[in-house]
Amino acid sequence: MSQPVTDHQNIGVTAAKGFRAAGVTAGIKASGTPDLALVVNDGPQFAAAGVFTSNRVKAAPVLWSEQVLKTGSLAAVVLNSGGANACTGPEGFQDTHATAEKVAAELNTGAIEVAVCSTGLIGVRLPMDLLLPGVEQAVKALSEDGGQAAAIAIKTTDTVHKTAQVTAPAGWTVGGMAKGAGMLAPGLATMLVVVTTDAAVESADLDAALRGATRTTFDRVDSDGCMSTNDTVLLLASGASGVVPEAAEFAEAVRTVCADLARQLIGDAEGASKDIRIDVTGAATEDEAVDVARTIARNNLLKCAIHGEDPNWGRVLAAIGTTSAAFEPDALDVAINGVWVCRGGSVGEDRDLVDMAGREVVITANLNAGSAAATVWTNDLTADYVHENSAYST
Amino acid sequence: MSQPVTDHQNIGVTAAKGFRAAGVTAGIKASGTPDLALVVNDGPQFAAAGVFTSNRVKAAPVLWSEQVLKTGSLAAVVLNSGGANACTGPEGFQDTHATAEKVAAELNTGAIEVAVCSTGLIGVRLPMDLLLPGVEQAVKALSEDGGQAAAIAIKTTDTVHKTAQVTAPAGWTVGGMAKGAGMLAPGLATMLVVVTTDAAVESADLDAALRGATRTTFDRVDSDGCMSTNDTVLLLASGASGVVPEAAEFAEAVRTVCADLARQLIGDAEGASKDIRIDVTGAATEDEAVDVARTIARNNLLKCAIHGEDPNWGRVLAAIGTTSAAFEPDALDVAINGVWVCRGGSVGEDRDLVDMAGREVVITANLNAGSAAATVWTNDLTADYVHENSAYST
Repeated sequence: MSQPVTDHQNIGVTAAKGFRAAGVTAGIKASGTPDLALVVNDGPQFAAAGVFTSNRVKAAPVLWSEQVLKTGSLAAVVLNSGGANACTGPEGFQDTHATAEKVAAELNTGAIEVAVCSTGLIGVRLPMDLLLPGVEQAVKALSEDGGQAAAIAIKTTDTVHKTAQVTAPAGWTVGGMAKGAGMLAPGLATMLVVVTTDAAVESADLDAALRGATRTTFDRVDSDGCMSTNDTVLLLASGASGVVPEAAEFAEAVRTVCADLARQLIGDAEGASKDIRIDVTGAATEDEAVDVARTIARNNLLKCAIHGEDPNWGRVLAAIGTTSAAFEPDALDVAINGVWVCRGGSVGEDRDLVDMAGREVVITANLNAGSAAATVWTNDLTADYVHENSAYST
Repeated sequence: MSQPVTDHQNIGVTAAKGFRAAGVTAGIKASGTPDLALVVNDGPQFAAAGVFTSNRVKAAPVLWSEQVLKTGSLAAVVLNSGGANACTGPEGFQDTHATAEKVAAELNTGAIEVAVCSTGLIGVRLPMDLLLPGVEQAVKALSEDGGQAAAIAIKTTDTVHKTAQVTAPAGWTVGGMAKGAGMLAPGLATMLVVVTTDAAVESADLDAALRGATRTTFDRVDSDGCMSTNDTVLLLASGASGVVPEAAEFAEAVRTVCADLARQLIGDAEGASKDIRIDVTGAATEDEAVDVARTIARNNLLKCAIHGEDPNWGRVLAAIGTTSAAFEPDALDVAINGVWVCRGGSVGEDRDLVDMAGREVVITANLNAGSAAATVWTNDLTADYVHENSAYST
C-alpha cells in the first residue's frame, strides 16, 4: 500500500464509509464542555472486536462491553467523559446497562449491539438524569462528518483531541479517535479508543488485526506507570466500501492508525514537556526488550533528569539493573540522542555533547545479549504533572 | 527487654562499646561539607554481616564489600558521600581497593578487613587525590563519640543525619546510622546503613538477625520505586560488653534500630511533604500483602493525590487491580486516616470526613482474602521532588 497519510485534523471515526458520529454536551462535566459521544455503524456489516484493560478492578462499562462483544458484532458505541463509572457497585453497572438500552431504543437495535465507554473520576455515579437526555441529543446530532465532534467530547484532561486515518489504494479506509492523558500505562489497551473501517472484514480477522496492532502500539506507551480501570480499544467494520482487503495490508493499516493515536497520547500526556522514545536493542528476546524498556520508562528519577535536560545515563543503568533480562553489567551501552554516553557499563562519550533542547528525546540501550529489540514511549516527570494530579478530584 | 529508647540526636554507631568513628571533609563534595566517614571496631571480637542491593548493576564498593564480608569479619568501614563509584569500570574497582588498602595501612590491619561504601552521582570517578589524604585525616579524628560526625559525613541530599540506638537491660547496645534521600526502594537494603553492637554475637547469628530485620524494615520502605546501585547495610559486633545476648532479644533490638532508621529515611525523602504508611490486611499471604502495599506505594497518581490532601481512594483500587494477589474487586475495603471511604469495592463513608492535614497519612486496604498483613512506607510525589531530581547532576 502507499504511504499512509495521517492528518490530526481529520474526522477520525467517520472517515470510513458507513459510520456516523456525534459529540454533544449532556452536562456531565461541570465545565460545560462536550461530554457525550456516539459512534454508529450503518452497515451493511456490523463486525467488531475489542481489547480491554487487564486491570482486575474493571469499570462497569468495561464489564458490559466485554460481554456484548462476545457476539463479534456492534451497531454503536456510546462514550462519556466526566465520570469513569468505576468502583460504583451494582448500581453503576445498572447505569451502564440503562445507557446501552437508551441508545438501542433510539437506534431501533438491541442493547447487546451497543458498547459503552466511560472516562473520568473513579468512584462517582454518573448523573443519569443528564446522560440519558444527552443520548437523545447525540442521536439527533449524528452526522457523516461527526468524527471530530465525537473526538472532542471524549476529552478529559486532554488538551487536544486525537484522530487518525489511513486510506488504502483499494478504496477502503481505517480511521480512529483516542483520548488519554493520565493513568496511562495500558495492559492491553489505553484509555478510550474507537477505530472504524469500511473494509469488509469478519470479526475474527478484526480481532487478530486489533490485537496485533495494540501489542506494539498502545501496549508500548507508558506515561506514568498507572493502569486505568477503563481502558478500551474498539474496532468496528461496516463493509461499506465493498472491498475485502488483503489481511496483512489491513493489519498494517490498523497498526498505523493505532501507532499514530498512541504517539498523540504521549505527546499530550499530563504535564509532559518531553516525549521520550526508549529503544532497547541487543536483547535476548522481544519480551525482555519490552521489560527493560518499560522499566526505564517507569524510573521517576530518570524522568526528572530528562525534564531537566540532564543526560543522566547512570539512572538508565540503575533501572536496567533491576530487571531479570539477560545482560552483563559491563557490556551495557547507552546513547542519549545519539551520543553513546555509556560504553561497556562505564563512562563513554562526553555527556556535554548531548543536545536535549528538543521535545523528543531518544534513549537507546544496547544490552549486547542478542538480536531482539523493542520501543516504548514515555514522557518526563514534571511539576505540572504533580500539580494536575494533586488537584484532579477536588 | 524494656522498651527501647531511641534518640535521634544520639551517637549512633559509637553508642556500643568497642567502636570509634569519625566524619571529616576530604573535599570530594564541591559544597565543602563533610564527605568521608570511618567506623572502626576495636574488638575484642570482629564479627560482621551485611546485606546489599539486589540491583544487578552494582557499584564497585558493593562488589568489594560483598567479597570481603565472606570472612564474616570486619575491622573497619570507610564511607564517602559525593560520588557513588558506580558504572566506573575496572578503574573504579581499583579506586575502591586502593581506599581499603589505605585504611588498612593506617589501622595496621588487612584490606580484607575493610568494607567500603560510596554514595552520590553514578558514572563519575572518585577524586582519589583528595580521598586518600581524607582517610589519614579521618583516622586521626577517630573518637568514641564520633558517631554523629560520621552520620553527618555520609549525607547527600539528606537534610538531617540519622542515628538510632537501643540498650538492653543486660548491658549491651545496638546503635546505627543511615543516609538515603532518593533512589530509595531497596531490594535487600537501603542506601548506606552501618549498625554496631557490643554484644558478643557470632557472624552467622549477626547475619540472621540482620536479614530478619531488613526484611520488615528497609525492605518495606519505597520512596520512589528506584533501586540504587549502592545500597548497603552492615552490622558489626565488637563483643566489648562481654555479654552474649538471648538470640530473640538481640534480633528484636537490631530490628528496632533498623525500623527507627528506616522511618527516618522516609521522613527525610527528597521533596516529600507527607509520610504515607500503607497497611494491607486480609491478604492470603504475607508476600501478597507486601506486593499489594508496594504497588500502592509506587502509584504516582495516588502519591500526587496525597500531596494535594485528596482522599482519592479510586487510585488505590486502580493500583490494587494491577496485582495478582488473591482478592475480589467487590470485596475491597479502603480507609484513609481511619475513614472507610471504600466499602465492598464501591463508595463507602463520606470522603469529606477524611482529615489529611497532618504529615503522616495512613492508608489501610483490607483485601478480605485471608489473615496476612504487611506495612510499606512511602511518601508523596511533589514538585520539589521533580525540581531536586531534575538538577541533581548539573
